[in-house]
Parts: sequence; C-alpha cells; structure tokens
Amino acid sequence: MANPRADRVRDVAKLAQRSARARRGLFLAEGPQAVREALKLGPRVVAEVYASEACLERYPELGSLARATGALRLANDDVLAAMADTVNPQGILAVCRQLDTPLGDVLARSPRLLAVLCRVQDPGNAGTILRAADAAGADAVVLTDGSVDIYNPKAVRSTAGSIFHVPVVVGADVDELAREARAAGLGILAADGYGTVDLDTLQDESAARRLGATQLGMAQDGAPSSASPGPALEGPTAWLFGNEAQGLSDDELALADARVAVPVYGEAESLNVGTAATVCLYASARSQRRSG
Amino acid sequence: MANPRADRVRDVAKLAQRSARARRGLFLAEGPQAVREALKLGPRVVAEVYASEACLERYPELGSLARATGALRLANDDVLAAMADTVNPQGILAVCRQLDTPLGDVLARSPRLLAVLCRVQDPGNAGTILRAADAAGADAVVLTDGSVDIYNPKAVRSTAGSIFHVPVVVGADVDELAREARAAGLGILAADGYGTVDLDTLQDESAARRLGATQLGMAQDGAPSSASPGPALEGPTAWLFGNEAQGLSDDELALADARVAVPVYGEAESLNVGTAATVCLYASARSQRRSG
Repeated sequence: MANPRADRVRDVAKLAQRSARARRGLFLAEGPQAVREALKLGPRVVAEVYASEACLERYPELGSLARATGALRLANDDVLAAMADTVNPQGILAVCRQLDTPLGDVLARSPRLLAVLCRVQDPGNAGTILRAADAAGADAVVLTDGSVDIYNPKAVRSTAGSIFHVPVVVGADVDELAREARAAGLGILAADGYGTVDLDTLQDESAARRLGATQLGMAQDGAPSSASPGPALEGPTAWLFGNEAQGLSDDELALADARVAVPVYGEAESLNVGTAATVCLYASARSQRRSG
Repeated sequence: MANPRADRVRDVAKLAQRSARARRGLFLAEGPQAVREALKLGPRVVAEVYASEACLERYPELGSLARATGALRLANDDVLAAMADTVNPQGILAVCRQLDTPLGDVLARSPRLLAVLCRVQDPGNAGTILRAADAAGADAVVLTDGSVDIYNPKAVRSTAGSIFHVPVVVGADVDELAREARAAGLGILAADGYGTVDLDTLQDESAARRLGATQLGMAQDGAPSSASPGPALEGPTAWLFGNEAQGLSDDELALADARVAVPVYGEAESLNVGTAATVCLYASARSQRRSG
C-alpha cells in the first residue's frame, strides 16, 4: 500500500476514535513489541497487519509470525504514519479484535488476584496499571463503567503488550462486580489514602500467619494470637483503585471489606493511582505466593 | 496583570524551555497543590506568584500564604493561560527558584535511601518516581547527567508537589556518585530485569535476619544460617534505575553491588521504570523500617 489517502488507511486511522473502536470492535496495536504479543494470540485477535519491508527485514521472526496469519500487507512509511496514532509506529501496526472477557468467565476460573479500576480516566495510568497487574500475576483487570477506554491507543501503548496477556473486563457495574466477586470467594479491598488499615500491617499479619504467631513473638504463651483485625492479604482478593482526582467514591468504598492505605513514609500528600496499585498488587502477590 | 502579551508574561512562559530555565535558575509550579507546597518553603524558593481573584477566594489559606511572600500579583485568566504550560493552570502559578542540592550535602546527612535515575528520559516517569520516592521516605532523588530536566513543567506536575519535599541532585556523574555513596556507607543496588538476585529473596533474607534465622527454620540446629548471599535490603541503599528503553548500561550495572530483579509473576516482558522503582523503594523502606 502506497497511498496514505486510501479508504482503508482512513478506516484504520479512525480507530484512534473511541466511537469507531466501539462500533467496529477493533483497536490498534503499534510497534514491534505490541504487534508481536498480538500475533502470538493468532488470527482470533489479529485482523490485519501493516508493515514496511524495512521493519520485516529488521525483525524476521515478526515477519514470519505476521505472514502466518495471512493478514499481512506491506505498507510504506507514509501509509503507516497516516494509520498510526503515534508519530512513529516503528514500521508495523496491527488492527486487533477487542478481546475483553465477560466478568462471569473471569470469576469461573477461580481468580486469586483482580485489579479493578473504578473510573480511572487517564489512558497512561490505565495502561501502566494493566502492565503492573500482569507483572504481579493478576488474573484479570476490570474497568468499571465510566473508566477510560482501555483500547485507546495511548492506553494500549502503556501496557507494553500486557493487554494481550491479561484478561480484561470492561464496562463493569461496580455493585454487581463486588457481589459476584464476593460470591466467588474473593475478598474486596479498597486502596484508599484515608484508609484505616495499613498495608504494612496486613503484610505483617499475613507473614505471622504463615510463620505461626509464636515465632513472631506475638503470643508469649505459645497460643495463637487471637488479634487478627485485618483481612487476609494471602486470600483471593479484588483490589479497587479509584479515579485520579477523587479516589474511590463513598459508594465504592462501602463495597469493600476494608479500606487499605499504602503507607506514606515521607511528606507526599498522596500516591499516584499507578504507584498505589503497584504496591498493593505486589503486596498481595507476595503474600499469596509465600503462603501457597 | 491583564495583558497576556506583556514582557513579564512572556518571560514566565519561556520557563517551559529548558534553556530558559537553566539560564535563569527558575521553574514553574502550576496549580493550587504545587503552589501550596512551594509556598510552605517560603521566599527562599518562591520568586513570584500569579493568581486570579477567583482562585484566591476559593483557596483563602493559599491566598494568605501567597500574600505573606510579598511576591503575589493578581492576574486574569488570559495572562495565566499565556504563562502556563498546562491548558488550565487552575488559577494560580508560581515562579520558583531551582532547589537542587549538591550531592555532598545529601551524603553528609547520612541518607538511608536514595533513588538514582540514570538517563531516565520521560518527564512523567521522572516526576512519578520522585513522588513515589517521597512516599517511600527516600532521602533524596539523584538524576544523572543525560537525564530529563526535573524542572520540566510536566515532570514538576507529575511530582504532585513532592519536588518541594525531597532533595534533588541533578547532573550527577554516575561513577562519582557510586564512589561517594559507597564511601558514605550506602550499598548500591541496580534494578535490572535481567538481574540475578530476586527482590523477593532479599526481602525474605532481610526478614529472616530480623526474626533470627531459627524462627524461619533456616538453621535446624539453632545456629545462625551462614547463607546470606544477597545484599542487606535493610541497610542504607542507593537504587539505580535505568533509561526507559535501554535499562541500565553495562557501565552503570558494573557500579552496583548486585543486580536485583523485581519478580515478574505474570507474562509481562518487563516493568515500566516507574513501577520497578516503586516496588524497589517500598521494599527497601519496609525492610529498613521493620529493622529499625
């Protein structure tokens, strides 16, 4: 393809718009890393691949994967630039089928760790949290109704390919989510800067349960300590993370078993939602894996 | 002030450029939160404050703080928009004096936790890490030569005021930094996805030292275990974090006592540098505070 004004080019470029993505059920993956992760999922996910010859020469295995789909079309740099959301799509992009999963399917697989984004607005934040959730081994990421579109090109870029690894639930109703997650055996924790339960304390309690209370000196007489005020971090958990400016709403907070604050040791007034999510998800992952 | 084309307005707006910031030793803090944190440091930091009447009415304590500096000038929204880097500076901005600290001053205060950004390029990443470092109680953030300018307006915004809390060292030579930090008693850890030491293992070892090896069942005969392969996470530590695309260079890695990998439990290929920094700094903070 050589004509950046062709209809097909315009159709791809329109995927930068939420309405076009929703109508067509497609989204854009740009650059070698994202396209490679998409191609690993095969034609179920990848509808079309556009690449320059230079790119395919530079990444021969990517070229093989792309050719195997039967959906590869060569394109020049002008065409790729016209299709892409980024200034420089690095010679390759894929039109992918949206791959969100119904909540019921996620819960049927007995998940141990869910990240729930409640009205998170910034595409970079949402994508970064999805990438961190992938790294922490989360079983799914849920975006509630009113959240940013995870298929936004900037969000997709921020996931660095993790959108093709972690099941994503979109448009969730937070009340329904809380009810069904609880019915599936998950505890619900709200990450809340004003929370009354400290994440460090939960980690200590989890370690104490693992080691036996006496070994931490919590019960001098050898009997297990009866003080266990916090929820069990090592148990299956859905974490709720809130909007960047407002945090979680009162209604959202009311759905949780506990409001958990990430400790702030310095003078920072609050944490970026991505930072808070990272600390919470890694704390859960560590407690779960050390207790498994 | 009512004329958005006045020389003074243009001078402020030019602080969006690195060269103007460097020449004048100034930078911009935009919005009520950042300006409030700046004002708490007083005229040593705040050179000028521009605010709309509406903003001062909305935040009366901010108005009092601003008036107390003697550097407050009323400005209309057109002037503020012309001065600001953001589309919407929320009615207030401050011209601040750059407040970086010499490395020697930081090291003279016996720091326990430093975050060193080695050629980190994205202003949002740098600012977010500074904010996370503040939250984790780090004693300073060091940016090596070749890093993004921390006084970039987007970086300053991403710190959410933390740039006024945490001492910042800029333009550091990484070899000199490593030598002087080591001489000041700090261990040097490199955050490296290919690292051979696992952060979880370091956390476990640190906990084991705290509790006594026998309590973790590491030494059946009651003698302390002699196996202590990793560096002590509870000791004073300077963490090196690398460039977004390339990570740490071989030369930078060679300066560290150990290359530490944040565990990836899922399929993510790598971690965003901000995510990795958050996990590392919080792991150190937790180990240090639990052992203190």
